[in-house]
Amino acid sequence: MTIVMDKDALNTFLAREFPQVADSFTVDHVDRTELVARLTVGPQHLRPGGTVSGPSIFALADLAIYCAILSRLGPVALAVTTSASIDFMRKPEAGRDLVATCRLLKLGRVLAVAEALVRSDGLPDPVARASMTYAIPQKS
Amino acid sequence: MTIVMDKDALNTFLAREFPQVADSFTVDHVDRTELVARLTVGPQHLRPGGTVSGPSIFALADLAIYCAILSRLGPVALAVTTSASIDFMRKPEAGRDLVATCRLLKLGRVLAVAEALVRSDGLPDPVARASMTYAIPQKS
Amino acid sequence: MTIVMDKDALNTFLAREFPQVADSFTVDHVDRTELVARLTVGPQHLRPGGTVSGPSIFALADLAIYCAILSRLGPVALAVTTSASIDFMRKPEAGRDLVATCRLLKLGRVLAVAEALVRSDGLPDPVARASMTYAIPQKS
Amino acid sequence: MTIVMDKDALNTFLAREFPQVADSFTVDHVDRTELVARLTVGPQHLRPGGTVSGPSIFALADLAIYCAILSRLGPVALAVTTSASIDFMRKPEAGRDLVATCRLLKLGRVLAVAEALVRSDGLPDPVARASMTYAIPQKS
Repeated sequence: MTIVMDKDALNTFLAREFPQVADSFTVDHVDRTELVARLTVGPQHLRPGGTVSGPSIFALADLAIYCAILSRLGPVALAVTTSASIDFMRKPEAGRDLVATCRLLKLGRVLAVAEALVRSDGLPDPVARASMTYAIPQKS
Repeated sequence: MTIVMDKDALNTFLAREFPQVADSFTVDHVDRTELVARLTVGPQHLRPGGTVSGPSIFALADLAIYCAILSRLGPVALAVTTSASIDFMRKPEAGRDLVATCRLLKLGRVLAVAEALVRSDGLPDPVARASMTYAIPQKS
Repeated sequence: MTIVMDKDALNTFLAREFPQVADSFTVDHVDRTELVARLTVGPQHLRPGGTVSGPSIFALADLAIYCAILSRLGPVALAVTTSASIDFMRKPEAGRDLVATCRLLKLGRVLAVAEALVRSDGLPDPVARASMTYAIPQKS
Repeated sequence: MTIVMDKDALNTFLAREFPQVADSFTVDHVDRTELVARLTVGPQHLRPGGTVSGPSIFALADLAIYCAILSRLGPVALAVTTSASIDFMRKPEAGRDLVATCRLLKLGRVLAVAEALVRSDGLPDPVARASMTYAIPQKS
């Protein structure tokens, strides 16, 4: 399936539609196989001890998957998360950004399903894995 | 099982350990059956259109379940979320706080499991449901 | 919402449409609040040591939720599970049936969401909890 | 991490410990990266219309992940599933076996996490994805 929004189009869209989070989240890469998104970790994402909070990791995976869907459907898509499952496996490494690599598994007429692996930037072992289902709004 | 941290003890603990989020989240009630936590919705939790963001709903359910575990184990517990599943079912009602009602299903030596229903304050239909597993740190 | 298939109608439907499993699964009760389904445990459901297998517990929760949806929509509904999350919390008690208590949380036009608690018959502590999303086929 | 049980050792273990299902499930391949398991589809796995049942797909993913853990820990490991999340994405193709490709994401002292993609044999698009957490029994 063709990519209809590239990296720049997605980042411009995020800056316009989600100004309150767009300075933390960036799409680094998108192609037909995968999308890579980055959380630039700031104090607002940290828990005591310097680790990134669970909700921030969830937000990164959610955003990566959302952008992967938009990259195929275009900016008009008001897709919403309906189900999410996430496993937190390792403590993120202090002082590193988090990077999510996302793969679309299904892009149906009504539902899209994707999975993401989240890692501390530059490290091989995953911090978390997530899978999410999005509902695609129907044209009426 | 006895409640070893009541509502006030939990809120004091949150204010001390999680100062960056404690003004948004409050424990409203805790007893042996359930714990109720509240997200005082502010601009930082909103998405375009005035709806509360998915990560904020996730954060509320996570915090409610965390506090339910602490209410039984006390403030020393460094419990961490290992798995979470969440279903987003309805749009939160604009202008209302979100309230999570949480029930512990298992409090084992190694793992705790709980579920939470999130509603717009005062409305019956759930906005989201979540279930989470926490790992309980082992004394060494 | 009205119940359009009662306990007897659901059991008759299961016997006709799912003959290969209908002698193991029975709907014990259905009303507007909840549905209760039973797995009559046989040798085919057991693992070494006499415990009921995970897939059998999954099948019971899935069937209970499916029947809860049919009880509102009628037998024509070709609903299919799209997402499921299950936590196994305790070993089922040997020699007892398993009983799932299921509650519909959302019955939308496109998606239905429900949760189920599975217990060993007569015992209070849950063996497992499950939540599932079903897609409701659209009339065309 | 070294593979301590290869394909033959795993299949021998399944035949001895799980005789009631071992004729349906086979480990086709295992290496340090992934494990591939097969469900030889028989009438007992089918639903009306000839599609493989959800619980059978769940059982295949569960078995693949279990064997992936055993391949690293050896046959003594009494690992049990604690959490599972599964998304059903496409109808399995009639008349084809199902094949699960499983990858271990974490093998900790207490918990193991893995994910699996299930496909109709020979077809590229996934029928289902699953992620599961297993508890590793502690030596005492």
